[in-house]
Amino acid sequence: MAQKPSIPKGTRDFGQLEMARRNYIFDTIRSVFALYGFQQIETPAMENLSTLMGKYGEEGDKLLFRIQNSGEKAALAPEKGLRYDLTVPFARYVVQHREEITFPFKRFQIQPVWRADRPQKGRYREFYQCDVDVIGSDSLIGELELIQIVEEVYRRLGIRVCLHINNRKILAGIAEVIGAPDKIVDITVAIDKLDKIGIDAVNAELRERGLSDEAVSALQPLLNLSGSSAEKLTALRTILAGSETGLRGIEEMEEIFELVNSQRSTSINSQPSTFNLELDLCLARGLNYYTGAIFEVKALDAQIGSITGGGRYDNLTGIFGLPNVSGVGISFGADRIYDVLTELNLFPTSLQSATQILFAAFGPDELRYALTWAKSLRANGVAAEVYPEPAKMKKQMGYADARQIPFVAIVGGDEMAQQKVMLKNMATGEQQLVSLDQLNEKIRK
Amino acid sequence: MAQKPSIPKGTRDFGQLEMARRNYIFDTIRSVFALYGFQQIETPAMENLSTLMGKYGEEGDKLLFRIQNSGEKAALAPEKGLRYDLTVPFARYVVQHREEITFPFKRFQIQPVWRADRPQKGRYREFYQCDVDVIGSDSLIGELELIQIVEEVYRRLGIRVCLHINNRKILAGIAEVIGAPDKIVDITVAIDKLDKIGIDAVNAELRERGLSDEAVSALQPLLNLSGSSAEKLTALRTILAGSETGLRGIEEMEEIFELVNSQRSTSINSQPSTFNLELDLCLARGLNYYTGAIFEVKALDAQIGSITGGGRYDNLTGIFGLPNVSGVGISFGADRIYDVLTELNLFPTSLQSATQILFAAFGPDELRYALTWAKSLRANGVAAEVYPEPAKMKKQMGYADARQIPFVAIVGGDEMAQQKVMLKNMATGEQQLVSLDQLNEKIRK
Repeated sequence: MAQKPSIPKGTRDFGQLEMARRNYIFDTIRSVFALYGFQQIETPAMENLSTLMGKYGEEGDKLLFRIQNSGEKAALAPEKGLRYDLTVPFARYVVQHREEITFPFKRFQIQPVWRADRPQKGRYREFYQCDVDVIGSDSLIGELELIQIVEEVYRRLGIRVCLHINNRKILAGIAEVIGAPDKIVDITVAIDKLDKIGIDAVNAELRERGLSDEAVSALQPLLNLSGSSAEKLTALRTILAGSETGLRGIEEMEEIFELVNSQRSTSINSQPSTFNLELDLCLARGLNYYTGAIFEVKALDAQIGSITGGGRYDNLTGIFGLPNVSGVGISFGADRIYDVLTELNLFPTSLQSATQILFAAFGPDELRYALTWAKSLRANGVAAEVYPEPAKMKKQMGYADARQIPFVAIVGGDEMAQQKVMLKNMATGEQQLVSLDQLNEKIRK
Repeated sequence: MAQKPSIPKGTRDFGQLEMARRNYIFDTIRSVFALYGFQQIETPAMENLSTLMGKYGEEGDKLLFRIQNSGEKAALAPEKGLRYDLTVPFARYVVQHREEITFPFKRFQIQPVWRADRPQKGRYREFYQCDVDVIGSDSLIGELELIQIVEEVYRRLGIRVCLHINNRKILAGIAEVIGAPDKIVDITVAIDKLDKIGIDAVNAELRERGLSDEAVSALQPLLNLSGSSAEKLTALRTILAGSETGLRGIEEMEEIFELVNSQRSTSINSQPSTFNLELDLCLARGLNYYTGAIFEVKALDAQIGSITGGGRYDNLTGIFGLPNVSGVGISFGADRIYDVLTELNLFPTSLQSATQILFAAFGPDELRYALTWAKSLRANGVAAEVYPEPAKMKKQMGYADARQIPFVAIVGGDEMAQQKVMLKNMATGEQQLVSLDQLNEKIRK
């Protein structure tokens, strides 16, 4: 009885081309992380529900995938759930392993997460996150390095980006000076939607959330400050003069800009700038645990929202009993980066086929001969396949075509007698009789 | 309120050194797969329970982790479960995507699987599998390439191994000639335990499973055939003369040995042999879907059981409605390979620290200076860290020590004035004042 196979909604299979492209993204990110000394860790797919519950708000709790207990406890309430993000497991990891960890702890983590969200275009129930954090230091060098990492990753991927930066302390200062210091969360949640719903809807939401008309009015010029980032910061200094927190936020921003600029203008190996860094007072990021700088990266040439984001937090591990550990981190959105690279046609064509050459043999003796040649190429690091049967040449060439293998080495009796193969360039159709040395030479360049 | 954080039993966190070592294993395997043109795919962690149920026997069904439905359907019986292995999802993948796949399909897959097994030493509820298969061809070139892959992977890892090989058709032939043709499954299940429980217990089990005393007696000399693999095959030819299936199995084995030997003795780039290939008539592998060659790899210098295994199957996809697709595959046991490399002290020491150099600055100006130098090194591909604060030198050196970073560049006012740094080799304690060019030179070699 045949079952019609399928996969759960909101999940995906990744075929070889998608995998090659996803690996290209992850390998690029990973290699940049490594240059800065970030170390990879992995945590289990399952966490205890007590670790996960209450960390993502009421809505988040509902989106946790719960795992039925096994054995005798099957009827009882689930005790385990699938990882919902990499942040909470990371906080749990830091607290659990704090005796073994050398701080500042620079870690990255690339693993799937699961959310019982309603599946829709671009939203999946299983997707990869790619987080990088430095924890256990409040030095703004952390922010600098993450900014440099963003610049370098997108330079390598060929995506032009703008890195929007803001500071929670500035937002808190704004809440103070407009007379709504207790509304900082409401303000950030509302203005976080500015891009999506527009200023009028944001203002309506602010009023709904209990801001007075005066406070909303006072907020408007702040959201509309113009000029360069430096000019905005100067203007803010006056406006936030009455808020100690706000002024501290401005100082942090000034130092970050100064650090980034001094490193970019340095004469040693200055690279062409492929990205802009911009103070964006409308950037809020809804998550409550941010306490300092917040980041969001947008591609300049694609309309797709944020492709990387993060910020500074002062108490991520407090929920697990380790207070006052400051850290800063960002998360790369692999699915969106994939979409941008696809839209802009930026994936290297070499990802189409890892195999560089297929040997196609006319008969069993030729097949043996081909195996020997393939072995020699592989010993030189060349990815080589041998069609496993002396099938019709049309079938073998069709295989090379479908797999987009750039070269085919055809082996018949004549070629074998001459200790050669007929090398066909699949793009140009060109054919050439070559020796093994010539073949090695040709393929490697 | 502090919660004491922990992870579900049978699961593991992987810290940076474990990750570096695991990545070393996976990268080694992956790079060999790539040389042979195998392509990576990934399937979702969750599969429909209908895909998984009934594929692993009654015992297996019990070990599936079931995922509670979300939303309104929460009270109903679960519809999804976590992947139990990579074989069934692969069969499902092949059937579901058969229109897009170019056959023969050479795929590999490296992903975690989950089993609600009782956790014990060396047995986990979450662990990685690493499977490689070629499907859609019955050519024995498939067996050859997998054998070559095993040889090359273990050569690169430095592990001396013996590859035990047998054939299900030979086992079927044996069942025939001892007069118990319907007992082939019972015979394979029982003799599969020979290594663990010994010949007497195996014989007892065979009788329990309904084999007559005569059949058990007739089986003994076959399990004890001596001599080289070729000699055993010759002896078998006589014994199995009455079994067509058995003779076909012998032919397959002879061809595989001949293929492997002809490729090994070839004059082109013959590599020193680091492994033995051996016909092992006691090798059965309990899984029922094998129909031809079966493999198992054991490390010669560690007592740890099989570290790689697999075989030929003729109907893996039949359960999903696509019959008669022949394939052959093997699975590398990453956890056991890890244990062998640890036991034999074979992990490269370079895995201890990815970071090659730490900059340790005496003050804020020195820190800026160090950032510029680090940037230059990174542009040359050197993994460099800058301690993010001008902390006490002891603390910064302690960080380098704990992280096992091989070089520290110390920056004080004097060094800065001379446009140099004091380079300390952490292994030897040697110190040397160097320019940026000299540093680049020293670190890269």
